[in-house]
Amino acid sequence: MAQKMIKNAVGRMIPAKINGEKVIPFQGIGKYKPTGKRFAPKLKTVADFPADGNKLVKNLKIALQKSGLKDGMTISTHHHFRNGDLVANMVFDIAYELGVKNLRWFPSASFPCHEHLIQYLEDGTISYIEGSMNGALGKYCSEGKMKKTAVLRSHGGRYQAVQDGEVEIGIAVLGAGCADSFGNANGLYGESASGLLGFALADSQYADKVIVVTDNLVKFPCIPWQIQGNYVDYTVEVEKVGISEKIVSGTTRITKSPDRLLIAEMTAKFCDKVGIIKNGFSFQAGAGGTSLAIGNYFAQIMREKNIKARFARGGSNKYLVDMLNEGLVEYILDGQTFDLDGVKSMAENSNHVWTSPFTSYNYHGKGNFAGMLDVVILGATEVDVNFNANVVTHSDGTLLHGIGGWQNCLFSKCTILPIPLFRNRIPIIKDEVTTLVGPGELIDVIVTERGIAINPRRKDLLEKVKRSGLPIKTIEELKEEAEKICGIPEKPKFGNKIVAAIKWVDGTVIDVVRQVK
Amino acid sequence: MAQKMIKNAVGRMIPAKINGEKVIPFQGIGKYKPTGKRFAPKLKTVADFPADGNKLVKNLKIALQKSGLKDGMTISTHHHFRNGDLVANMVFDIAYELGVKNLRWFPSASFPCHEHLIQYLEDGTISYIEGSMNGALGKYCSEGKMKKTAVLRSHGGRYQAVQDGEVEIGIAVLGAGCADSFGNANGLYGESASGLLGFALADSQYADKVIVVTDNLVKFPCIPWQIQGNYVDYTVEVEKVGISEKIVSGTTRITKSPDRLLIAEMTAKFCDKVGIIKNGFSFQAGAGGTSLAIGNYFAQIMREKNIKARFARGGSNKYLVDMLNEGLVEYILDGQTFDLDGVKSMAENSNHVWTSPFTSYNYHGKGNFAGMLDVVILGATEVDVNFNANVVTHSDGTLLHGIGGWQNCLFSKCTILPIPLFRNRIPIIKDEVTTLVGPGELIDVIVTERGIAINPRRKDLLEKVKRSGLPIKTIEELKEEAEKICGIPEKPKFGNKIVAAIKWVDGTVIDVVRQVK
Repeated sequence: MAQKMIKNAVGRMIPAKINGEKVIPFQGIGKYKPTGKRFAPKLKTVADFPADGNKLVKNLKIALQKSGLKDGMTISTHHHFRNGDLVANMVFDIAYELGVKNLRWFPSASFPCHEHLIQYLEDGTISYIEGSMNGALGKYCSEGKMKKTAVLRSHGGRYQAVQDGEVEIGIAVLGAGCADSFGNANGLYGESASGLLGFALADSQYADKVIVVTDNLVKFPCIPWQIQGNYVDYTVEVEKVGISEKIVSGTTRITKSPDRLLIAEMTAKFCDKVGIIKNGFSFQAGAGGTSLAIGNYFAQIMREKNIKARFARGGSNKYLVDMLNEGLVEYILDGQTFDLDGVKSMAENSNHVWTSPFTSYNYHGKGNFAGMLDVVILGATEVDVNFNANVVTHSDGTLLHGIGGWQNCLFSKCTILPIPLFRNRIPIIKDEVTTLVGPGELIDVIVTERGIAINPRRKDLLEKVKRSGLPIKTIEELKEEAEKICGIPEKPKFGNKIVAAIKWVDGTVIDVVRQVK
Repeated sequence: MAQKMIKNAVGRMIPAKINGEKVIPFQGIGKYKPTGKRFAPKLKTVADFPADGNKLVKNLKIALQKSGLKDGMTISTHHHFRNGDLVANMVFDIAYELGVKNLRWFPSASFPCHEHLIQYLEDGTISYIEGSMNGALGKYCSEGKMKKTAVLRSHGGRYQAVQDGEVEIGIAVLGAGCADSFGNANGLYGESASGLLGFALADSQYADKVIVVTDNLVKFPCIPWQIQGNYVDYTVEVEKVGISEKIVSGTTRITKSPDRLLIAEMTAKFCDKVGIIKNGFSFQAGAGGTSLAIGNYFAQIMREKNIKARFARGGSNKYLVDMLNEGLVEYILDGQTFDLDGVKSMAENSNHVWTSPFTSYNYHGKGNFAGMLDVVILGATEVDVNFNANVVTHSDGTLLHGIGGWQNCLFSKCTILPIPLFRNRIPIIKDEVTTLVGPGELIDVIVTERGIAINPRRKDLLEKVKRSGLPIKTIEELKEEAEKICGIPEKPKFGNKIVAAIKWVDGTVIDVVRQVK
């Protein structure tokens, strides 16, 4: 049966319903105004919880049973353990063992380690995944094998969806590097330290039942409490919640590719020339090799000119921590720690502050931090001549990445995408992006190894780069240059089946992803 | 017209309705189970807030007008500035100036400095106060002059009432010693530092509009954010939010009264003999002269026996901070700082942790900290032979104190009331307390200068004190001793008018206070 399709405000055709639920089409930046109320969980009473605060049960199976695990429930987990996560797999192994069916998995992100769960998608233990998907699960979804439609959200969008009651979580199972039997938990200490647990905040606040799982049980009080035990129903001690070397992998090194270094240098120079790098400024870069190089160039400029940043946003890593310790940055406001230097700094330095998608990204609150950033440096798999960008699908149409904080960060005062002009001889700048994840009106600058394109909407920036000596080009010029070298790439071929919906930060649907052929 | 009255589970007669709203009578400890949902505030969108996060408006009047201040609204403030608070008075001066009427003031507590507001109770700017009342306002209320009935709640009960939607706050006006223009705020720094702002947490989370007022505006980010800017609508800079010497008064000194010292020593000895003072234990004492003496005796015993407490609950003060620094206490979990040593320690020592009524006391959550305490030392204006206690009215029937965290703390594993046998020649132990604020089944031990009475329900404690050498008596014996010395006191005389309702921690009504004659 053909679905009813609607054209949204960026001209993308989206279905009227996804997974049986009515869709609100994207209406433009800041246009959709929610009229509802925050999700209201059932009231609880202390009288129903252990008087001495000890909520420990023998194992995760018992905790899940006591939490009323049953067919059709929504189970959430967080991704702070990244590719070292053992918790989500444990949960669904138990669900399978208990014969529970049709669960919706609502992770804050999935990783290659969750390939283990494909068997449960196959046998009906899990009906579908609602969350950013990476690796094998992304491929599985892209091939149209998942029974329902995936729903991808940004980190902020996920908080918004839970807060707004768009997604009601039955049981949240939250792994923690450190916890007490009351359920207070943090990610700062222990073998499975992940730095922080902010991606689990909404789950803890709004899920009907909350289980904290740890391999490092400490006596009450577990300090600090990134997750508050007052939201927790049961606590469980297990041997291992994560594989430490995969939770915080070794520090990513600064890129050695001459092209990438050139892009990084140009990005930093651009920020300097247009006056972004000045005393008290703020920035968010990221943790990829190019981003690290940009941070490095920033640091050089700041040292030379004796400039201090008021704050930098993490994902943190050794390089950012070094800037904090050197005094180049007053505060790191961190959402996730990418390496052990980040974890250690967060545990020891009170100016290395843990944040959450609520503080940083939630769009249905009274403001958030994202708009305060003077400059944000982001990646993209594709951009188009209208500065729209894609971050979830590759040019062959395969869904391989989550949105992360990417959409949320676009609200900064200046959003820059430093990207190579082509990857594997495929040009990155298109007439139209395969999947529209970020609207062009929020993307200000594209920096490539062959020139910088500024969004024509940013007349102020265009004015500032006059006589800067920077290689400013139009985005069409950059596109032509790439096509001269690589030719015009073929468009990916899609089937009819919609395999994933891409939500905007306000819960509306900005695009969909179709099955690859 | 005679009101319909109901007898509640402790035998007190309470009206079926208070201020036109239906009352749930007290049903026994842990008996009333809430069936509703958490209060759900309206969803907001970042699109309606300044893109750069700067929510500063010119003055408090404009902030109140923008927040839609109008007749009949509920306005909340916190009491962290204690008797140095300037904020509440400012708010109602503006309301008066604007001709707004019938406001309900919902403070977390009032102080003598709020006598200023009596004029607004008189002229109808304020219709009534719902919050613990001290000093002149308590007297005003006791004399039956307030048009409606006061409602007194514990700190935890106030959080519960807001969380449950029992009280809907129109505008919360939250003073802060330190804040940024986004609304992140703390009480740790500045001329008006108050230590923390936890009593304003519920207000920030659930009020429709939230205004942060500070005399110490710092550049974003204000770290730490005890109040999160993401809940804040407007920020205002004023010259002064509090009178610093009245916010944190000088440290209370340890009592020098021989009787009080004896009570303190016996209390500590009791705790030692029954095995409460042991490695890893926890306690909450308080900040009065006798409490400080008890803490001091605890410290002596701990030093002698090489015992460390896992945590102590504040209100903190110099003496407790000294115990933390000496290593006798691993953590202070603090709800309010009573002196500058407390404020300083909280700002500098990460083991001096700020808590909130949510973590510590909220009864409609998944547990709270109150039940985990091994021992809590509390005061009382009266107790009776059934171990019921009163903390709000004097023996003459005048309402002069708020409940504070008192009711919440009763849930500890051992609740001790060290009280003199008489005050101003009026015996403290009665046949029946004037106002029943805490049910006897939660009160374990009464320590007086002439002996210790143990609640007969606590057979375990009675067993442990055998052969302890402690002067154990029945509560009836203590009562008789006092009456032999002072005679049997006259009962206070009350009028018919109910001037205040006393809520239990679960929102039910445990007693009422009548007009004094």
